[in-house]
Amino acid sequence: MTDRRFMRRAIELATAGIGNVSPNPAVGAVLVRDGRIIGEGYHREYGGPHAETDCIRDARVRGEDPRGAVMYCTLEPCSFRSPTKHNPPCTESVIEAGITRMIIAARDPNPAVAGCGVHALRTAGIQTSCGLMEEQVLKLNESYFLATALRRPQVHLKWAQSLNGRIAHAGGGKTPISGPEAQRHSHGLRAAVDAILVGRGTVELDDPSLTARYGTSPARQPLRVVLDPGLRSPVSSRLFQDKAASTLLLSGPLNDNALTHAAELKRLGVELEQLPLHKEGGFAAEDILQALYERGVRSVLIEGGAVTHAGFLAAGLWDRLTVYIGPTLLEGDVLAPNAPVSNLSAAVVEREVDVLGDTVAITGLNPSTRRVLDGLKWDTAPQPQQAGCMLPQEEAHVHRFGT
Amino acid sequence: MTDRRFMRRAIELATAGIGNVSPNPAVGAVLVRDGRIIGEGYHREYGGPHAETDCIRDARVRGEDPRGAVMYCTLEPCSFRSPTKHNPPCTESVIEAGITRMIIAARDPNPAVAGCGVHALRTAGIQTSCGLMEEQVLKLNESYFLATALRRPQVHLKWAQSLNGRIAHAGGGKTPISGPEAQRHSHGLRAAVDAILVGRGTVELDDPSLTARYGTSPARQPLRVVLDPGLRSPVSSRLFQDKAASTLLLSGPLNDNALTHAAELKRLGVELEQLPLHKEGGFAAEDILQALYERGVRSVLIEGGAVTHAGFLAAGLWDRLTVYIGPTLLEGDVLAPNAPVSNLSAAVVEREVDVLGDTVAITGLNPSTRRVLDGLKWDTAPQPQQAGCMLPQEEAHVHRFGT
Repeated sequence: MTDRRFMRRAIELATAGIGNVSPNPAVGAVLVRDGRIIGEGYHREYGGPHAETDCIRDARVRGEDPRGAVMYCTLEPCSFRSPTKHNPPCTESVIEAGITRMIIAARDPNPAVAGCGVHALRTAGIQTSCGLMEEQVLKLNESYFLATALRRPQVHLKWAQSLNGRIAHAGGGKTPISGPEAQRHSHGLRAAVDAILVGRGTVELDDPSLTARYGTSPARQPLRVVLDPGLRSPVSSRLFQDKAASTLLLSGPLNDNALTHAAELKRLGVELEQLPLHKEGGFAAEDILQALYERGVRSVLIEGGAVTHAGFLAAGLWDRLTVYIGPTLLEGDVLAPNAPVSNLSAAVVEREVDVLGDTVAITGLNPSTRRVLDGLKWDTAPQPQQAGCMLPQEEAHVHRFGT
Repeated sequence: MTDRRFMRRAIELATAGIGNVSPNPAVGAVLVRDGRIIGEGYHREYGGPHAETDCIRDARVRGEDPRGAVMYCTLEPCSFRSPTKHNPPCTESVIEAGITRMIIAARDPNPAVAGCGVHALRTAGIQTSCGLMEEQVLKLNESYFLATALRRPQVHLKWAQSLNGRIAHAGGGKTPISGPEAQRHSHGLRAAVDAILVGRGTVELDDPSLTARYGTSPARQPLRVVLDPGLRSPVSSRLFQDKAASTLLLSGPLNDNALTHAAELKRLGVELEQLPLHKEGGFAAEDILQALYERGVRSVLIEGGAVTHAGFLAAGLWDRLTVYIGPTLLEGDVLAPNAPVSNLSAAVVEREVDVLGDTVAITGLNPSTRRVLDGLKWDTAPQPQQAGCMLPQEEAHVHRFGT
């Protein structure tokens, strides 16, 4: 179980990068000799050194020599160069450092790596084992794995409801459903994603700030995204005015009447992007996700309202779902999202339950998402094209939104 | 903590009577001398000996002499005789047995006892302490305490819903929402009550048998109650045909057309009772509960449908609520019950969460019910009327336990 202990430490190190490295994955590495850790490292921020390099440097700072040591790394080392990539291939750093054994948790699904990292290590005579605690690393970097495989952001739906499935009181307005522990939990979800998305109705009804607060302090605030096909969100809304994070408004094609409104929002620093309108005057979930993906968003937390949630549910474009259930009963028909489903089998798998004070959080994974993740494992993923590994690779996506 | 250990054992013994003793409470007793248990007893079935007597007899069977021993009893011993009562006053048995100290958990809210039991013991010179683990005993016998205080059965609402608050798929019919562990749990709820109630719609849609199964084996099956104002339930329904338990159908006043239907049901052994009809052709929740109470029902599990649940919610006539939440999402508008509430504060207190395989059960207590239960405690309950007890009165609680 010593191997698991070291890999667990590497995962722990990787965790520190969550929220700061997207669109890269969070990666951790540990160097071990004679059962003793001689170096630790992780990918600290986007653009900074990769975990392997950070770890080798740490060993040297400690006066240790990496030669002959074993490296535990949560992800397959990268093996390619590209003009837009900040780091040299980690396989080269590992080989040059004289490391003789590599233990790797998960395969890098980036087509520029995807088995070629391991191939390069083995070709250099490094004994390489794969798959230790793979599942934990898939979960840690779920958004990276999914976004890489699906070329869209990971989609996490989140709402709060009463015991009888209402999301607000019939009277309307902001309804306190969940208590402070649940607030902290949901702000933790915000801090871990690249973007938070709501529909126009939620902006008008709740006037949310959509920032990660309550004890979370992400290195950068997630992008705030508002779906507003008709460009009708009030300019006075908190998230347009407070400068607390970047804001993107997705609208339909703008007519002349909307131009002043648009100009006002732009003056406040709000970015506007136009998407095609579909049936009933709304956007297609695919279009929304594509627009976000092209901006470098690899994970999006969709906070409502129910119509927005239902759009992603209907399209099958969601990966995780978290429902907060407060100790309340509510009257009326402001309901949790309708869910067009084709069958009655389990809609979520790997269901987790968190008791957060008076609120219960139920989280689950879309079964299709589970299948996508399983397809990325060493056992099931396609073997790399041997010839492909020899060629210089292009990095597929480099654009990144800024805050 | 020795006292708690013995009282915990008495509670454990009491538990064995649940489901067999209603409308009496489940009571357990333990006799202790020199820190050693010399007798154990409980109220095994309605009409049988009370826990105190059972415990004293057990000590004698073991060849032990109760004289000078300490008795731990979960409920205040009864202190009255009546022509309809099967047992002599337990206070007399305790006094005659020479027990010198009594430790009692909860006060008996029955007006014929209600402090007089303790008074009789103290008058006889028995050192008597009250209140140890009182809360646990209130919970164990919640239906007895509530029914005695409110003169209506304890009302437990129960339903299963999807993650998005739907109780059935739009297509209708029986929708499997919760898995086998949840089924066992809900059959446990059935086994603990005197009656199970559903509306006519549930009989027609689900054709349930409404018996306690799935590993539960109550000494007697709860009474099955169907609300059917217009007497339209099909005679072929399982619960009319299967003879697995007694069935009561509550209808409105019967017209001539309904007489044949009624005669058919009676021939099958179904009992019919007519209640007045109120607005929208339904019953008043009060009337339903009164009819059940008069039949000796002290606890009723209301299994739906949503309209039936909503009636009890609207009337504020409910004590507990259990919602099973499956890992599913459902489409359409077959919704969990609407809950007319006057404010948005917590609707349930003492919320408990049970993870039952893929299903989560959330149970809570009505805050008004909590207040009723609190009012039955030694600290808050009214002192017995001097004239009400057979003997002169003293202060009801001299020795008290801390926590």
